[in-house]
Amino acid sequence: MIRFTNDYSEGCHPDILAALAAANTEGNFGYGTDPHCARAAGLIRQAIGAPGADVHFLVGGTQVNATAICAFLRPHQAVLATELGHVCGHETGAVEATGHKCVPLPCGPDGKLRPEAIRAGVAAHPNEHNVQPKLVYISNTTETGGAYTAEELRALRAVCDELGLTLYLDGARLASALAAGGASMQDCAACCDAFTIGGTKNGALFGEALCILNEALKPDFRYILKQRGGMLAKGFLLGIQFEVLMQNDLYEQLGRRSTALALRLRDGMRALGVAFANDSPSNQQFPILPDAVLEKLAGDFHWEEMGRRGPDAREIRLVTSWATPDEAVDAFLQALRAALAAG
Amino acid sequence: MIRFTNDYSEGCHPDILAALAAANTEGNFGYGTDPHCARAAGLIRQAIGAPGADVHFLVGGTQVNATAICAFLRPHQAVLATELGHVCGHETGAVEATGHKCVPLPCGPDGKLRPEAIRAGVAAHPNEHNVQPKLVYISNTTETGGAYTAEELRALRAVCDELGLTLYLDGARLASALAAGGASMQDCAACCDAFTIGGTKNGALFGEALCILNEALKPDFRYILKQRGGMLAKGFLLGIQFEVLMQNDLYEQLGRRSTALALRLRDGMRALGVAFANDSPSNQQFPILPDAVLEKLAGDFHWEEMGRRGPDAREIRLVTSWATPDEAVDAFLQALRAALAAG
Amino acid sequence: MIRFTNDYSEGCHPDILAALAAANTEGNFGYGTDPHCARAAGLIRQAIGAPGADVHFLVGGTQVNATAICAFLRPHQAVLATELGHVCGHETGAVEATGHKCVPLPCGPDGKLRPEAIRAGVAAHPNEHNVQPKLVYISNTTETGGAYTAEELRALRAVCDELGLTLYLDGARLASALAAGGASMQDCAACCDAFTIGGTKNGALFGEALCILNEALKPDFRYILKQRGGMLAKGFLLGIQFEVLMQNDLYEQLGRRSTALALRLRDGMRALGVAFANDSPSNQQFPILPDAVLEKLAGDFHWEEMGRRGPDAREIRLVTSWATPDEAVDAFLQALRAALAAG
Amino acid sequence: MIRFTNDYSEGCHPDILAALAAANTEGNFGYGTDPHCARAAGLIRQAIGAPGADVHFLVGGTQVNATAICAFLRPHQAVLATELGHVCGHETGAVEATGHKCVPLPCGPDGKLRPEAIRAGVAAHPNEHNVQPKLVYISNTTETGGAYTAEELRALRAVCDELGLTLYLDGARLASALAAGGASMQDCAACCDAFTIGGTKNGALFGEALCILNEALKPDFRYILKQRGGMLAKGFLLGIQFEVLMQNDLYEQLGRRSTALALRLRDGMRALGVAFANDSPSNQQFPILPDAVLEKLAGDFHWEEMGRRGPDAREIRLVTSWATPDEAVDAFLQALRAALAAG
Repeated sequence: MIRFTNDYSEGCHPDILAALAAANTEGNFGYGTDPHCARAAGLIRQAIGAPGADVHFLVGGTQVNATAICAFLRPHQAVLATELGHVCGHETGAVEATGHKCVPLPCGPDGKLRPEAIRAGVAAHPNEHNVQPKLVYISNTTETGGAYTAEELRALRAVCDELGLTLYLDGARLASALAAGGASMQDCAACCDAFTIGGTKNGALFGEALCILNEALKPDFRYILKQRGGMLAKGFLLGIQFEVLMQNDLYEQLGRRSTALALRLRDGMRALGVAFANDSPSNQQFPILPDAVLEKLAGDFHWEEMGRRGPDAREIRLVTSWATPDEAVDAFLQALRAALAAG
Repeated sequence: MIRFTNDYSEGCHPDILAALAAANTEGNFGYGTDPHCARAAGLIRQAIGAPGADVHFLVGGTQVNATAICAFLRPHQAVLATELGHVCGHETGAVEATGHKCVPLPCGPDGKLRPEAIRAGVAAHPNEHNVQPKLVYISNTTETGGAYTAEELRALRAVCDELGLTLYLDGARLASALAAGGASMQDCAACCDAFTIGGTKNGALFGEALCILNEALKPDFRYILKQRGGMLAKGFLLGIQFEVLMQNDLYEQLGRRSTALALRLRDGMRALGVAFANDSPSNQQFPILPDAVLEKLAGDFHWEEMGRRGPDAREIRLVTSWATPDEAVDAFLQALRAALAAG
Repeated sequence: MIRFTNDYSEGCHPDILAALAAANTEGNFGYGTDPHCARAAGLIRQAIGAPGADVHFLVGGTQVNATAICAFLRPHQAVLATELGHVCGHETGAVEATGHKCVPLPCGPDGKLRPEAIRAGVAAHPNEHNVQPKLVYISNTTETGGAYTAEELRALRAVCDELGLTLYLDGARLASALAAGGASMQDCAACCDAFTIGGTKNGALFGEALCILNEALKPDFRYILKQRGGMLAKGFLLGIQFEVLMQNDLYEQLGRRSTALALRLRDGMRALGVAFANDSPSNQQFPILPDAVLEKLAGDFHWEEMGRRGPDAREIRLVTSWATPDEAVDAFLQALRAALAAG
Repeated sequence: MIRFTNDYSEGCHPDILAALAAANTEGNFGYGTDPHCARAAGLIRQAIGAPGADVHFLVGGTQVNATAICAFLRPHQAVLATELGHVCGHETGAVEATGHKCVPLPCGPDGKLRPEAIRAGVAAHPNEHNVQPKLVYISNTTETGGAYTAEELRALRAVCDELGLTLYLDGARLASALAAGGASMQDCAACCDAFTIGGTKNGALFGEALCILNEALKPDFRYILKQRGGMLAKGFLLGIQFEVLMQNDLYEQLGRRSTALALRLRDGMRALGVAFANDSPSNQQFPILPDAVLEKLAGDFHWEEMGRRGPDAREIRLVTSWATPDEAVDAFLQALRAALAAG
């Protein structure tokens, strides 16, 4: 079985495993107060060009989103996100469980939130009988693979400044966004009030680094980190992993690898005449394939179903990761060609 | 620097590291739906003698406590715990953040909650102007090292049955409780509505296994697990670790090791005439030492401060772990003897 | 200034004022444990044909909705409502503040939730990565004046039974729904798990009666009532008011009056050729009028703006109440005729 | 049956009833945006000597406490209150339901919170593994009838300034505190970040006025008021009542009356040799009486039981109100004299 199911099916990059093994008996203080976390935070500050950033390490994506959002908002304030936004539909109401409404806004096939949608969302909540839109949540890449350009981020920053909003970027798949030609980490730091650098989907066993740029959002974050169950006892495990990722270009290199594989998949499918639900430049691809073809492929490959597209076809999601072998892509394209030919 | 600071300063037991490395490129479905989690859950069901138990794996202790408690309670219901209870004072109000009051009850030096205290706690909340006590939280070992006997657990079960309460046992240090002659895992399963088997402090990189025995508490737990950020994307990492721990007696063996080291420390200190804040049979020891002695030891050893006990002495906490070397205990006792002699 | 702004601009029906005055120095136990509340609850049980119903009295609408919903749901469960539903957009996220997501579903101009929409809403939330739809919220009349028929309520009951959902009806404007030929109070009791009988908008100073029919939802409601600030110290004030409302047909009579006035407004406007945003049979009417006409009327009348409908016209909301004088309707129609003629 | 049960057994002062009747058909905008609320707020600003204060009107005490506290705190912050504090034990965990822990601190028989207790409470929560004490809750009068002096309030202000804490005063019984020689309303405004002026227990049908003095706590309060169900649709009912109370010295006059009656009760009991649980200068008195005496009185009088004090005696609470007749006090003292003589 070859998996294009997601980008978190494997453990971690061998260098990270080696680093964890090397530090295994070291002895470190708990809760992220160790030298590994300090060094990793320093490397991140350097990489994002923000020497004053606060950097916190959390285990998972739902956790970091809910923790950051509840730390940044007052009780009556709400999140603006696209209707596809991970916080809106795929985190079991984690944000609402902290008391805050997620307001779903329309978006195009690229899954990107646009300034006009934000303006309309704010205008639709004019007074104290409504929640107060306050935090703009974007994911980069988006849930449909889109990568924000630097210019797009700057436009979001501008509308947030204009309307008094906080811009939060969920970078669970930031590595692929970088590889897809999207805004750089420095752009993220320059435009966002806070953003995450996702490790789980790019070579780490687990871990998301939360970078807080806005001074007003920094105080007491560690209290909320602890309160929401996000402060790992052995925080040094996160520090060690991000130390490795942020050195020798490893983080971006792994993103380039997963993205290149996805584009090879895409181009190969295009060459076979396959249509796509959208035009994704990153490590998630959304081809539309006939049921008969999918049935033939299902024995050897695994993917996620995205829904029916017409009476005889379905959209699927293929995801590549740092760990996807080249051969997996070759095998899929070969099998697809055969299935299409037979069909 | 030799650390008796806590039992989560190191990585994991070599067998676990080897298992993680062996499975690193395997490819597994996410969110704990993989065969490792299934097998680990099976091993746990067998170990606790409860074939029908639901077993969930979470990353950390604060997380599992808050998630379980908020899953088990209705909004008006409260937690009864000792005033030393971890949920009462050391988790930054994680339980209150889910809306539930923790009612602190008195306890003795062993940190154990007793049926009389529970009865008094319930009697003090007679009607709808008070929260409704519903879940009894105990930690085993307790915050001061006490280990509940099987008989004590049965007495708690009886009072919970009598008063309609849910009994929840936080087993972050269950391994040492087992080694200290406390109730067995089967006893825990027989007496508790739910309990945890702590991995973080006993050989795992991280991980707590939550066992739910009471049928009424089982439905939809995975929803709440996801909502509270406790569902690890690469859940198989937890499955792999508990597979190793629950085989070949490793879990109990590591608990016996940490506990034996602590008792050697205790006996050595006793032989030197040191007094203790209480009589702990487990891997946490609470000696009371003169300031002058502690000053001499502070250069080579690290511990946690528990507070002043008289004008010239302080209580400290010494913790041993599966990873503590024998030599660390020898070194401490030798240094202590010297410091006391000099004093 | 003649107000068609809303149906809560005045105090209360003279009979209620008289009853409050008569009981003013009586001396009653607090928190709704008085004989007035008991008698009022009895009258309601009789009126709704449900001798076993639990009846609780709360001060306001947002309060009763949020309190009931948080009492009825577990943390991962969500509310299904129309996108116009009061809980979705006009209560400042009160439901989300208790931790529960409101899932907005499409509806037609009558504002009614239909079984197909519920089925689609449930289908869109298939597993533990989504919230679990559990409570269906409907308002009757709806936010756009629609009144559910008995048959429509039974269809909703059927789909709720099929899908394991709780049906909750917000009867803030139940009196007008009854007058508009909608389902009876007995129908509401037969079909809903819980519903409210609104007093604030139908003759009371304030007050909503919550009727809980489903046994599973009854236990401990008073705890949550108190916890959410909904237990009035002088609960007898609520009892006294509902005693009056539920006797001598007063509640329905006041609803008939407000509704008849609204229909007279509607028919008068229709006769003048005015178009409406929808066809409302109840005490809220939604005419679409030219800006120029509205400008002329604005000096003497007050209403709520519903938004622009074309370049030169706007939709407004006109609401009548038990306290609206006949002359107000006459005056509006006369002024409108003049304004239209001048235009 | 003569009631000394509490001070909210009756309706309202006749002047308030008359004012409500006079305004009954007036027509007012909703949600507290009416002229009555504006005038009442103006009168309060004048009375408390704080022209810049924000004044909000809420229906009840639990509601105003929970709403203000959740508006003023970030998620990790906690309330410091005495162990007798109403928020700690008599509001069904309303504060915890908004996510915040109440930390109970020791107090003497007068129920007052003292600077040393606050300092100790803060010292006991040193870092991010604990909640962060932030809001000091005091009630005035206290739960046992104590009235803070101006000097005591200034001392609390000083410790709050020193430790960065918010001082919140629950004035549910402020009128009696004023009459008991406690700090003035101007003192409250000068020392507190926010405080309430209680109407429910001093002549109003219902209503508490929340005065926010600290600029940092003012923004967006109305959003949270709405979200927590505290924004009364017919807000003008609150405005009308406080207009009456704050004119012609009525508020203080009613407090003087209830307090004088209580002191007459106290002095009469003292003359009969009765002991008290504490020395209360306000409208709550806590005598300790033999069981046999209480049994004799129980047929004609009602009170609240405070618990056993010795094998043959119990402490009870007697409360007087603006509505208590002089004859009730006479009757109680006479009956008590007879019962003691018979005993």
